[in-house]
Amino acid sequence: MTAPKPRIGIIGTGAIGGFYGVMLARAGYDVHFLLRSEYDAVVQNGLQINSAVHGSLHLDSVQAYCNVSDMPECDWVLVGAKSTSNFEMAPLIEGVAASNAKVVVLQNGLGVEDGLRNVLPDTLHLLGGLCFICVHRSALGVVEHQALGGVNLGYHSGPADSQEQQGLIEEGVAMFREAGVDSNAAANLNQARWQKLVWNMPYNGLSVLLRAGTAPLMANPDSRALVRSIMLEACGAAAACGHALPEGLVDRMMSSTDHMPDYLPSMYHDQAQGRPMELEAIYAAPLTAAAAAGFAMPKTEALYQALRFISARSVG
Amino acid sequence: MTAPKPRIGIIGTGAIGGFYGVMLARAGYDVHFLLRSEYDAVVQNGLQINSAVHGSLHLDSVQAYCNVSDMPECDWVLVGAKSTSNFEMAPLIEGVAASNAKVVVLQNGLGVEDGLRNVLPDTLHLLGGLCFICVHRSALGVVEHQALGGVNLGYHSGPADSQEQQGLIEEGVAMFREAGVDSNAAANLNQARWQKLVWNMPYNGLSVLLRAGTAPLMANPDSRALVRSIMLEACGAAAACGHALPEGLVDRMMSSTDHMPDYLPSMYHDQAQGRPMELEAIYAAPLTAAAAAGFAMPKTEALYQALRFISARSVG
Repeated sequence: MTAPKPRIGIIGTGAIGGFYGVMLARAGYDVHFLLRSEYDAVVQNGLQINSAVHGSLHLDSVQAYCNVSDMPECDWVLVGAKSTSNFEMAPLIEGVAASNAKVVVLQNGLGVEDGLRNVLPDTLHLLGGLCFICVHRSALGVVEHQALGGVNLGYHSGPADSQEQQGLIEEGVAMFREAGVDSNAAANLNQARWQKLVWNMPYNGLSVLLRAGTAPLMANPDSRALVRSIMLEACGAAAACGHALPEGLVDRMMSSTDHMPDYLPSMYHDQAQGRPMELEAIYAAPLTAAAAAGFAMPKTEALYQALRFISARSVG
Repeated sequence: MTAPKPRIGIIGTGAIGGFYGVMLARAGYDVHFLLRSEYDAVVQNGLQINSAVHGSLHLDSVQAYCNVSDMPECDWVLVGAKSTSNFEMAPLIEGVAASNAKVVVLQNGLGVEDGLRNVLPDTLHLLGGLCFICVHRSALGVVEHQALGGVNLGYHSGPADSQEQQGLIEEGVAMFREAGVDSNAAANLNQARWQKLVWNMPYNGLSVLLRAGTAPLMANPDSRALVRSIMLEACGAAAACGHALPEGLVDRMMSSTDHMPDYLPSMYHDQAQGRPMELEAIYAAPLTAAAAAGFAMPKTEALYQALRFISARSVG
């Protein structure tokens, strides 16, 4: 006798939420999607993933909602919305989460769980998910999956003791793996977040500042050197904050980016489409943590200051 | 009995050469202008300066040339062309310069005279001129003068001994002053160049990177802080190179920029119009000098790397 598969709620069905939701639904999980602007299109046409890895994936009859009050209680809640909207996400998460549900924040940056933790009930488990994936939305209900796809999970806070935390993470890892998604446990969530930042800090910001994807940024010797310096600043900051990263990480990240298709990170699309950029989670919080640990990140700070200028101009 | 006024040749009649040439010609100097793309327009319409300081200034019958071989020998040669074209300028300078003429390089950046020195005859005096002025061309033969206007002169190299150098600089200063241009002697040309760089290094590059003039860069707290950091890096580099700058310089430059009209530096116009940017003189040479003196300029270097990327993209 097999235990029933857990019920999964997707809050924020953008590229990330859409991709993982479709993968899990195709593996037989009971997945429910909260949508806003894409609701009508998804109800009519379903969700489409054009994947360079898995081919064309279509989810025909999507369990789609535009009101969280219509959704059933979910055991796992995957938050794919932008970290910039976490404060507004909290009531939606609470509205769909079963009493001791596992809430996974599939976002980049530092401190993204902290803000949510303050406004979510203590009974909910809060986890962080680091997505190593190249995806973007190309139309309503259509996600382009260019490369990679893994999710690493770490426990942030909640009612579980350390042994139970281990079990919950393993459960989540097994769930993703069953859906054909590479997944691993992150023993230290903060370290895992810093490690992901080593990639996001150079590419996200420079894609906006220089209006360029990873391929031209890596092909030009000057921007390539700048990428590398920012990665090294992030590694130094992580170590200063007590989360020393693996030896050789920068070289491996440079090399794996060289082998990726040209990729425009989410921050590029956010800025180009007039959405707020995730500057707080990806730049401000790590810079504050580094400064508190006495570590200077001058090139990263210069990039952040330039992005804040661009952000203010876009709004103003 | 008054000595005859010296004859002046202007090589590169852009905004800088046009402005100072017109001021000198209106003061009775015998000024000859070498022109390229603007020749026909200037012969037909003269040179026009729309000055926020001096009002509308017009020079009707311009002594204009498109071939240096048609020009008379000049006692002073003012080089207003871009530093990026100094190598091609040398034969033109030599063609118009009297045997022991004073050649004044009215350009920003470090090392701009060194390249010229190598290709000019030893008999020529080479001086540097630091222009504190907000000007740009708005049409063929038309210069907009927004603010300021001073020129500080320093001796670079040539046949003069130190006492003669002093005399030559005073002669040049007097000439500019007689034309209504504020002018002072720079005892140490390299120090004067570093001092000017403290202004150019932040504003020139950031105007390109952020597509913004001085006013928005100063109004936004993040770009303002970035401007200030880059100024402080330039001051630190100058000191490390043996040219300590006056106490309080950064505050005074920030304040005087606050009181300027919104100004787009020449690098902005160069990039917008597809001309090469003066990256070598304004960034590469100072960064190299600072590195040789063991002084790091990380934010300036990040800006330079970003500008090199933009420059390569514009060409490519």
